Amino acid sequence: MAKSEYEYVREQERDDRLPKFNWIVVRINGCDFHRFSKIHGFDRPNDERPLNLMNDCAISVLEQFPDIVFAYGFRHEYSFIWKETTKFYERRESKLLSLSVSFFTSVYVMKWRVFFPEQELAYPPSFDGRVMCFPGPGARLIRDYLSLRQNDCHIFNQKNTCSWMLVNSGRTESEAEEYLEGTQESERNELLFQQFGINYNNLPAMFRKGSSLFRDQEDVTVKLDDGGNPIRRTRKKIKVEHSDLSRKGFWRWHPEILSD
Amino acid sequence: MAKSEYEYVREQERDDRLPKFNWIVVRINGCDFHRFSKIHGFDRPNDERPLNLMNDCAISVLEQFPDIVFAYGFRHEYSFIWKETTKFYERRESKLLSLSVSFFTSVYVMKWRVFFPEQELAYPPSFDGRVMCFPGPGARLIRDYLSLRQNDCHIFNQKNTCSWMLVNSGRTESEAEEYLEGTQESERNELLFQQFGINYNNLPAMFRKGSSLFRDQEDVTVKLDDGGNPIRRTRKKIKVEHSDLSRKGFWRWHPEILSD
Amino acid sequence: MAKSEYEYVREQERDDRLPKFNWIVVRINGCDFHRFSKIHGFDRPNDERPLNLMNDCAISVLEQFPDIVFAYGFRHEYSFIWKETTKFYERRESKLLSLSVSFFTSVYVMKWRVFFPEQELAYPPSFDGRVMCFPGPGARLIRDYLSLRQNDCHIFNQKNTCSWMLVNSGRTESEAEEYLEGTQESERNELLFQQFGINYNNLPAMFRKGSSLFRDQEDVTVKLDDGGNPIRRTRKKIKVEHSDLSRKGFWRWHPEILSD
Amino acid sequence: MAKSEYEYVREQERDDRLPKFNWIVVRINGCDFHRFSKIHGFDRPNDERPLNLMNDCAISVLEQFPDIVFAYGFRHEYSFIWKETTKFYERRESKLLSLSVSFFTSVYVMKWRVFFPEQELAYPPSFDGRVMCFPGPGARLIRDYLSLRQNDCHIFNQKNTCSWMLVNSGRTESEAEEYLEGTQESERNELLFQQFGINYNNLPAMFRKGSSLFRDQEDVTVKLDDGGNPIRRTRKKIKVEHSDLSRKGFWRWHPEILSD
Repeated sequence: MAKSEYEYVREQERDDRLPKFNWIVVRINGCDFHRFSKIHGFDRPNDERPLNLMNDCAISVLEQFPDIVFAYGFRHEYSFIWKETTKFYERRESKLLSLSVSFFTSVYVMKWRVFFPEQELAYPPSFDGRVMCFPGPGARLIRDYLSLRQNDCHIFNQKNTCSWMLVNSGRTESEAEEYLEGTQESERNELLFQQFGINYNNLPAMFRKGSSLFRDQEDVTVKLDDGGNPIRRTRKKIKVEHSDLSRKGFWRWHPEILSD
Repeated sequence: MAKSEYEYVREQERDDRLPKFNWIVVRINGCDFHRFSKIHGFDRPNDERPLNLMNDCAISVLEQFPDIVFAYGFRHEYSFIWKETTKFYERRESKLLSLSVSFFTSVYVMKWRVFFPEQELAYPPSFDGRVMCFPGPGARLIRDYLSLRQNDCHIFNQKNTCSWMLVNSGRTESEAEEYLEGTQESERNELLFQQFGINYNNLPAMFRKGSSLFRDQEDVTVKLDDGGNPIRRTRKKIKVEHSDLSRKGFWRWHPEILSD
Repeated sequence: MAKSEYEYVREQERDDRLPKFNWIVVRINGCDFHRFSKIHGFDRPNDERPLNLMNDCAISVLEQFPDIVFAYGFRHEYSFIWKETTKFYERRESKLLSLSVSFFTSVYVMKWRVFFPEQELAYPPSFDGRVMCFPGPGARLIRDYLSLRQNDCHIFNQKNTCSWMLVNSGRTESEAEEYLEGTQESERNELLFQQFGINYNNLPAMFRKGSSLFRDQEDVTVKLDDGGNPIRRTRKKIKVEHSDLSRKGFWRWHPEILSD
Repeated sequence: MAKSEYEYVREQERDDRLPKFNWIVVRINGCDFHRFSKIHGFDRPNDERPLNLMNDCAISVLEQFPDIVFAYGFRHEYSFIWKETTKFYERRESKLLSLSVSFFTSVYVMKWRVFFPEQELAYPPSFDGRVMCFPGPGARLIRDYLSLRQNDCHIFNQKNTCSWMLVNSGRTESEAEEYLEGTQESERNELLFQQFGINYNNLPAMFRKGSSLFRDQEDVTVKLDDGGNPIRRTRKKIKVEHSDLSRKGFWRWHPEILSD
C-alpha cells in the first residue's frame, strides 16, 4: 500500500484557532430535553435532581479544565467561560467545543444513578454546543453575556412556573400558554400570588437565579499540631452559588474571577 | 430587570455553516486513550472488547443521524461521513460536531457494562472531534480520505503488533521501539513471521482493516401468508464489515453509498 | 523604543487560506456605477467603450496572474477563475482578493484615456470584490456558476434594452419600469420587435452574451527561412469571445480550460 | 434559458462579517514597490514625493469612508482604522477590504501626475491588503497596534538611512547590508553621526515617525457680519501629523479619536 497515494488529502482541516484577547464561551444545551424530562419524569415546574446533576457535571468540567474560570447554568444549559488568555489546545475551537461537550456528557451518564437511583436512563442523553467570543481586555462584555443568560433564566422560570401552576390546577398546556400570552412580568408575579399564594421571590434561588460555579479559596484544617491547635491551609475549591450576577452583586465581591 | 440592557451581546455567534457541495467528515478520537486503555486493562496489541464497543457506539450514531452514510473506525477513532447534500442543522459545524461527539460519548458510557461486565469505568472517558470538508460532487476525495485512514490503521496496527510481540518476549517498551525504528513494512512482516510465527495477513481483519459501517438492504421474512409462504420485505440495516476500502474492493460493490 | 512592548499585537491576522480542491472565483463589481455611468455619459442601453475598457483591464489581469484560467464579464462586473490547484500566495483569500481588485482598478484608471480620449475622469472609480469557492475536482459547478452569470447578463440586458427603448421614446424611467414589471422574456422580445423593430438576437453578442477571456494557442509566423518559407511557432494568446457558455457551446471546444 | 437550472450555485458566498466589539484595521501595502520605486526613480533613502502621494490618497480614503477614524502610514503601507462600532456594509470583510484597496489604488493612479509631473507611470501600480481585528471596548490594543507600526517605521527608516549613506559613499548594497548586520539602534545612530555628520533625530519627522491622519475640528471664518466682524464656524478637517503615537504623546491630546 503506497503511502503517498492518499497523503494529499491529509490536512484538509482548517485553522480554527479563536482570536486572541477574547473570552471564550462554550455553551452546552441538552438536546431535545423537553422529551427527555418527560420520559424521565422530572417534576414540573422545577426539579432539583436534574439541576443538581447538571451542577455536578459542571463542577467536574471545572476540575478537568483549569482554564475555565467561571460557569453559569440553568435548566439544561451551561455556559463555560475560558479565560481570555487561555492557550489550551492553541485555542482551537473544535478542541474546546468537543472536549467540553464530550466530558460533560460522559459525567452526566456516569453520575445519573447518583441523582436518579431508582431509574435507568431510557436512552442516551446528548448535548449540543456552540462557541462564542467576547472581546477583552476588560470584563464588561463577558459579564453582560452572563447577565443575559441569567435574565433568560429568570424570564423562562417565571413563565414556566405560572404555566405549570395553571396546568396543575386543571388547564391544558395549550390553555395555559394562551392564558399567559402577552402578559408582563409583574402580571405574572401577581397571578402567582393571587391565584396560587406563591411569592415568586421566595422560591428557591437555584430556580430563579440559576447556578454560578467558580473557584474559591477556603481555609481548611489539615491537622492538629502537637498542642492540639488546628493547622490551617488555603485550598482552592469549586463553589456553587445562586447569586445575582450584577455588577453590584456577585462581581463586587469577586472582581478577581474575570480579571485579566 | 430590563431586558434590553443586555440584549446587545446576544448573537455574538458566527455563522458556521459548512460550504455546500462538500462531504462532511466528523472524526472523533478517544482523549488520552493511551492512559485509558492501560487503566482499564485492554489486551495488547489488540482487544476485541473496546473495538466492539466503539463499533456499537458508531452503529448508534448512524441510527441517530440518518444523513450519515458511512463510518470508518479503528483503535479509538471513528470518522463519520455526512452526505454531501445534508441540510442537517443547516450544516452548522458546531451542531454537527457537538451532537456527534456528545451522542457517541453518551452511548460509550451507557454500553460500557455490556462489553466490560466485570469492570467499572474508573473515570469519565471523553472524545475530541474535528470537522473536515471534502469537495464533491463525485466521491474521489472522500474515498481517498477513507483510504488514508485505512492506511493509517494498517501502519499503526502492524507496528503495534510487532512492538507488543517484542515486549511480550522480554524487551522493554523503549527497546522494542528502538528495535523497530526505521524498519520497512516488509521487514516487520518478516519479523512477525520469523520470530513469532505470525502470518500478519492471517490476523483478524477487524484489527488489520478497521471497521466500516453502512446501511445495507436485506430481505426479511415479515410473516407467512395464508398458504404458509413467506412474505418478504426489504429493510435497511446497518452493516459492519472489515473490507479493503479500495476502488476495486469495497466501493466496487457499493457504489451507491457515496453517490450524490 | 523597546521592541518587545508591542510585539504581542503582531499576527492578529487569521489564517485565511481557501480550501484546497476548489476553483476560486474573484468577482469584482463597479462601485456605484449607476452614478458613474451617468456622470461620464455612457450611452444607453449599451456603450461599447466602457465594455471594451473593462475587457482590456481583464486581459491585463490575466497577463498579470498566470493562475487565472478564465474570466467572464458583462456590464461593470468581472469574474476571474483561479485554477483549482493554484498555490498563489498560499491561496490566501485577502491576497487574491486585494491584488485582483487593486490591479484591475489601477489599469482601469490608467487606460481610461485610451477609451475616453475626450473626457477626464470626474472622480476616482472603484470596485468592490468578493471571493467564492466552487468544489472540484471536475468543472460542473464552476461551469454552472459561469452559466448563471451569463444568464444574469442576458436577463439584465434584455430588460435594460426594453427600458431604454421606452425611455428614448418618451416615457420616464419609472414609467418604463412599471410597464415592464412582471413581463416574461418572450413578451419583452415581442415588445422590442413590435414597437421598435429590434430583433433582440441580432444585437451585438458582446451585449447579449458578455465577454469570455481565456488563453488560446495560435500559430504565428516568426520569420521566413532561407528558402522564404514561413517558420511558425505556437504562442499563448489571450482571446476575447462572446460565446454561449453552455456545455454544448463553448466548453465543447475548450474542454482543456477547466480541466484539472 | 431556464433560470432555475443554475440558481443552485448562487450564494456560494460565505458570511464574512467581522466580529462586533472589535476595531477593524485594513492595512494596504504597495505590491513589489522595491521594483516600483527603482523604476520610477524615487530618491533614496527617502523621497517626499511618493510619501506625499500616499498621504494624499489616504486623505481621500478618509473623506470617502466616514467610519475610518484614524490612519497611519509610512513607506508604501497604510493602516486604516474603522471605528469599533462601524456597521458599514454590515462589517463584511470582503467589502471593507476590496473597497479600501480599490479606492486607494484609484486615487494613487489619478494623482500620480500631481506629484510626478515629469514622469509617466511605467506600469500599473497595485496594493495588497489584509484585515485585522482588535478587540475593544477600550483602545489599548488598537493603540498598541499603531505603536507597533510606528516602531517598525522607526527601525526600517533608521536602517535604511544608514544603508543608503553607506551606498552613496561607495559601498555596494550588499556590502552595506553586511556592514549593518547585527548592529544595535544606538550603534547605527552613532554611525550616522560619526561617518556622515547626521543627527538622526533632526531628520524630517515624516521619515522617522510616519504620518498620522485624523479628523480635527478647526474654527473657520465663513463670512463677515454687517459690522465687518468675522463669523466663525467649527468644521471637521482631516489633519496630517508626524507625531509620536505613545500614550503620553499624541493620544494624550486626542483621546476622543479612539473612544467608543
